[in-house]
Amino acid sequence: MNIQNYVAGQWVSGTGEEFLATDAITGEAIGTVSSAGIDYAEVLEYGRRTGGPALRKMTFQERGRMLKALALHLMKHKDKFYEVSFRTGATKVDSWIDIEGGIGNLFANASLRRQFPDLPYYVDGEAAGLSRNGTFIGHHIMVPKRGVAVHINAFNFPVWGMLEKIAVNLMAGVPAVVKPSEYTSYLTEVVVREIIASKILPEGSLQLITGLGRGILDDVQLGDTVTFTGSAATGKKLQASPQILERGVTFNLEADSLNASVLGEAAAPGTPEFDLFVKEVTREITVKAGQKCTAVRRILVPENYIEDVQAAVSKRLASTTMGDPRKEGVRMGSLATKLQVERVMAAVDKMKASMDMVYGGTDQQAEIIGSDYEKGAFMAPILFRNNKPLEVMEAHNIEAFGPVSTIMPYKNLEEAVEIANLGKGSLVSSIVTADDKEAREYVVNAAPMHGRILVLNEKSAKESTGHGSPMPLLTHGGPGRAGGGEEMGGKRGILHYLQRTAIQGHPDTITEITQVYQPGSTRPEADKHVFRKHFEELTVGETVYTAKHTVTVTDIVNFANVSGDNFYAHMDETSLEGTIFEGRVAHGYFILSKAAGLFVEAKKGPVLLNYGIDEARFTKPVYPGTTIGVKFTVKEKIDQEKRSEDDVAKGIVKFNVEVYDDTDETVAIATILTMVKKIDQSM
Amino acid sequence: MNIQNYVAGQWVSGTGEEFLATDAITGEAIGTVSSAGIDYAEVLEYGRRTGGPALRKMTFQERGRMLKALALHLMKHKDKFYEVSFRTGATKVDSWIDIEGGIGNLFANASLRRQFPDLPYYVDGEAAGLSRNGTFIGHHIMVPKRGVAVHINAFNFPVWGMLEKIAVNLMAGVPAVVKPSEYTSYLTEVVVREIIASKILPEGSLQLITGLGRGILDDVQLGDTVTFTGSAATGKKLQASPQILERGVTFNLEADSLNASVLGEAAAPGTPEFDLFVKEVTREITVKAGQKCTAVRRILVPENYIEDVQAAVSKRLASTTMGDPRKEGVRMGSLATKLQVERVMAAVDKMKASMDMVYGGTDQQAEIIGSDYEKGAFMAPILFRNNKPLEVMEAHNIEAFGPVSTIMPYKNLEEAVEIANLGKGSLVSSIVTADDKEAREYVVNAAPMHGRILVLNEKSAKESTGHGSPMPLLTHGGPGRAGGGEEMGGKRGILHYLQRTAIQGHPDTITEITQVYQPGSTRPEADKHVFRKHFEELTVGETVYTAKHTVTVTDIVNFANVSGDNFYAHMDETSLEGTIFEGRVAHGYFILSKAAGLFVEAKKGPVLLNYGIDEARFTKPVYPGTTIGVKFTVKEKIDQEKRSEDDVAKGIVKFNVEVYDDTDETVAIATILTMVKKIDQSM
Repeated sequence: MNIQNYVAGQWVSGTGEEFLATDAITGEAIGTVSSAGIDYAEVLEYGRRTGGPALRKMTFQERGRMLKALALHLMKHKDKFYEVSFRTGATKVDSWIDIEGGIGNLFANASLRRQFPDLPYYVDGEAAGLSRNGTFIGHHIMVPKRGVAVHINAFNFPVWGMLEKIAVNLMAGVPAVVKPSEYTSYLTEVVVREIIASKILPEGSLQLITGLGRGILDDVQLGDTVTFTGSAATGKKLQASPQILERGVTFNLEADSLNASVLGEAAAPGTPEFDLFVKEVTREITVKAGQKCTAVRRILVPENYIEDVQAAVSKRLASTTMGDPRKEGVRMGSLATKLQVERVMAAVDKMKASMDMVYGGTDQQAEIIGSDYEKGAFMAPILFRNNKPLEVMEAHNIEAFGPVSTIMPYKNLEEAVEIANLGKGSLVSSIVTADDKEAREYVVNAAPMHGRILVLNEKSAKESTGHGSPMPLLTHGGPGRAGGGEEMGGKRGILHYLQRTAIQGHPDTITEITQVYQPGSTRPEADKHVFRKHFEELTVGETVYTAKHTVTVTDIVNFANVSGDNFYAHMDETSLEGTIFEGRVAHGYFILSKAAGLFVEAKKGPVLLNYGIDEARFTKPVYPGTTIGVKFTVKEKIDQEKRSEDDVAKGIVKFNVEVYDDTDETVAIATILTMVKKIDQSM
Repeated sequence: MNIQNYVAGQWVSGTGEEFLATDAITGEAIGTVSSAGIDYAEVLEYGRRTGGPALRKMTFQERGRMLKALALHLMKHKDKFYEVSFRTGATKVDSWIDIEGGIGNLFANASLRRQFPDLPYYVDGEAAGLSRNGTFIGHHIMVPKRGVAVHINAFNFPVWGMLEKIAVNLMAGVPAVVKPSEYTSYLTEVVVREIIASKILPEGSLQLITGLGRGILDDVQLGDTVTFTGSAATGKKLQASPQILERGVTFNLEADSLNASVLGEAAAPGTPEFDLFVKEVTREITVKAGQKCTAVRRILVPENYIEDVQAAVSKRLASTTMGDPRKEGVRMGSLATKLQVERVMAAVDKMKASMDMVYGGTDQQAEIIGSDYEKGAFMAPILFRNNKPLEVMEAHNIEAFGPVSTIMPYKNLEEAVEIANLGKGSLVSSIVTADDKEAREYVVNAAPMHGRILVLNEKSAKESTGHGSPMPLLTHGGPGRAGGGEEMGGKRGILHYLQRTAIQGHPDTITEITQVYQPGSTRPEADKHVFRKHFEELTVGETVYTAKHTVTVTDIVNFANVSGDNFYAHMDETSLEGTIFEGRVAHGYFILSKAAGLFVEAKKGPVLLNYGIDEARFTKPVYPGTTIGVKFTVKEKIDQEKRSEDDVAKGIVKFNVEVYDDTDETVAIATILTMVKKIDQSM
């Protein structure tokens, strides 16, 4: 059987055989892998010319719904993926991380649409005032890069590795070419077949290279983004390629690092945190048989506790059953290939030269359930000990990408930070302690060298997602050895695929480009009250100029009575000395409430509800005798999809509320959030 | 005279003479420049060990005040800087951009402190929920990188070039080593002498290398940031250095680009926009004698208008008087050095091979007031014409860094975008048009290839800051040829000097690290009402649990009466069919107002005023009969300085307002912003 490539709208086999994929448990052949003969210049151009324009036409809302549909579709087919995943040596738990964790990234990114405008491009941050009279302002938009994302992925997570990346570039409006490792691309292929068959993504937005992909980066150009997940050495080499650097191609590197987990000084033997630590580091050694870029490679413990920790971890490791993940009771699977076993063993040999092996050994004595060392890519866990962590550097430099970790002592928290930072930049670190001050000190000082830091204690343990799991809403990546890249991170990740451009001009121009009302732009009077208009009928900038109201002491008293707010500045004329107030002042909440009284149209209409207020500011005290009016302006519209057939079709409308006084000065501003019914109730 | 270097706390002369600085107008010698003999490994380490820790100890508020003090100090000495600036060939206007524009960056960055917390590190974005029961959450902090910023600057803006960069790294808490071009470092030196003498910056946070700086990048390491402003070729070469790439050093490149200004199709001859365009492009050719990385190098006009534009631009150029900027009536100065004149002329020679020179010439006939071509580095403006912009590529590739530009025709807006994008990535573009739809189409399509786009028309012209001026609050930089870097950009720029780290743990832990109350964390009851406590006495997390209130129809009616808000969902029982409401519902504004009635302590005390509300959300309808109470929690504290001696010493306190009902479900949440008096009235 051939593992195929999906390029330029077709499933194709490469010429010859670049790699023979085999079952990591049984050693049986799975299929021949090759991408030889593929014209990558054409593949990249196909993505740019076909997938790019189709995705760029869509708004963020539409792309989000597309991702959600894809996630739901893949969930329906997940059993098929699990079956193939077992062949990579992954247990059920390992596969859950890969498959459902991957699909979870689609869901999470789909949900991010609520943080984006109803446009194909993003409006970034706030406008910047650039002039005294407000006729010239600045802002930023971020538009999809006009290129293709080339993802070169590691062998350990053939599904998650693809989905966590394409979720982000698709959300941004950028097409992808995915090149998983040839070791396990047979699983990625099965998933991509489901994706393509579903026709949920526009054609050209996803292509797959299952083989070696030699030359895939030769024709990248400005606007393209390359991501690489894997070893630091290979990643840095690719990053330095002239075509990447000279052409200004964006490069995101996520490299394996030597992640440290720290037992806090507050977590003495006998505390719940001590037990949590032992459990967590043991799990990090055995899950995915240690083949995780985020695995705990360095175990840092207060010097007094080291014997206890070593004994407890060794005991847990000894009780971890290894074997065919399809068999009952198996908790640890195999490595992905026999070649990987050889590589990890070579690293272990180097580590042995300077450190003691205190658990396990190279003679592989642990029992294997349902297979054996001959057939499968099995490797038993190994624990090293480094008594001089500030002198013996092997534990901070050599990465054995398997079930191998090193335990070492520290004297005080400052030294723990120093040792952790010897990793020269890591994806993740963790500290287990019930003392939040200790946690803060570690986190703030280790942060410059780490992309993510987990604090674990009894209160958080039950719901903790663990040291090893990158989360879609948090940044994944780390400085230095970890590559300096940033993946995921919620909205932040999507912005990496967009080009930020500062824009400057009259507020009218900036309103037209951003489709958000900018203060200072023209506000045409609405032809009928905006509360009488449906979502589709509203135009950004149209304004209701309300009737006015003269504020009186009676208003203040009545408002105090109904609210119960008798704050001295409103109620006590004798208290104002030394305050900024010249007399009793109207409540800010009264001004907002009265503004609503002025701008609301009472009769039932398309406005369904007001669900919130953003950035309300009381900019000038309002005293009795002041007459106020409101300019009520459509600020922004965001389309929403129906949650169910029976749901009312509606959209979000944000209104700008500007309350002004007799001198035309603004006394209060706010943004109010409403839901407004559509005329078209079909979608 | 020696132009000196400031390193490791001392003013030192380099050995020998690397460059002889001369007056660009008169040719007189100014001084010998050298940094030979300086040990850069020591310089960088001095910054890291001395300036770094001092700056990192300060909060953003303190760093902001420091920058403001520095800006005020330099403004007092600006006359001295102007005197020296004239010697670089700059006119008064050119010098204003360099000197006061540079100081303006200090002021603008100082003001950004209001967008940062009262901590040495930044809390980025919102918390991310990671668990069903809320006992495990994620967030991001951004801590100052533990290195030094090395700024390699261009010769054209010896003051602005330094200040726009150090304003940002100092705000971030990172020390700088500045290496201006040896051509004009004599002006930078004068400014740095004032800075150092003022003792406003902690020692070690600013060092100056005025000479060639050979080897300055040899010892950069992880945590350091290198910025380069200058030619794309040199920049890309530095960026590819192994010590930069392999060590994970951050590199920010801002390279000269071939920026295009477009006359819109709506801007026919005779319109105000036509005249604005002619004025703007002429100014961009002559200001700073065209030595600006943002200058208009390509003038794109509708093919029908090209003769008119060429005639009008030529006429304006002819009326631009050139000479000694200290003489009356001089509008254009000289280039910075005679060597620059030779270089620009070499580029002009190459351009001549494929394009017609339609204004000016290499024979330099324009009159010079107060000097002559022999003595000074003068060069008269030159205008080329390229009739086939899609075929003749010289105008898109060759940069003559002087008063040289090329005019070319386009057929329609789509082609204008295509031609502009032939610059392969530019710092800036502009379009002059009164038609906002035309502006939007140009901006959105040119954005992927541009870092900034200005839209100019009659409405914005009076206050426009112009095509060529980068602004402190807007991103400066651009993709591709422009280097792919991002400078300034307000808060965004500061974040470039910080390392982002995701943090995970129990809300209590995340509250402790971020010093912002996180929902789900412990809320100890305040020992006395928080409105009776001064700024210093308040602790993040402490909470007032208020009395409760049963909402009645009377409340709804009374609130409608006092506010005038008679919206049907509150007032009309017969209107609710088909709405989400089960009965008449209390006003959201009433719930907020009533919450204030419950949490406010009426008696005069340290709370001075409530100046706003952020992110109020009405999360559940409140019907008559529901009993509500409020949890009122100190969310965040931000220190403020007194504006004057007489000012009341106070700080900002944000409170979290959580309104809950009989079932303990949240019905409304909001953040309210208050100012609270300090006990200590001295600062």
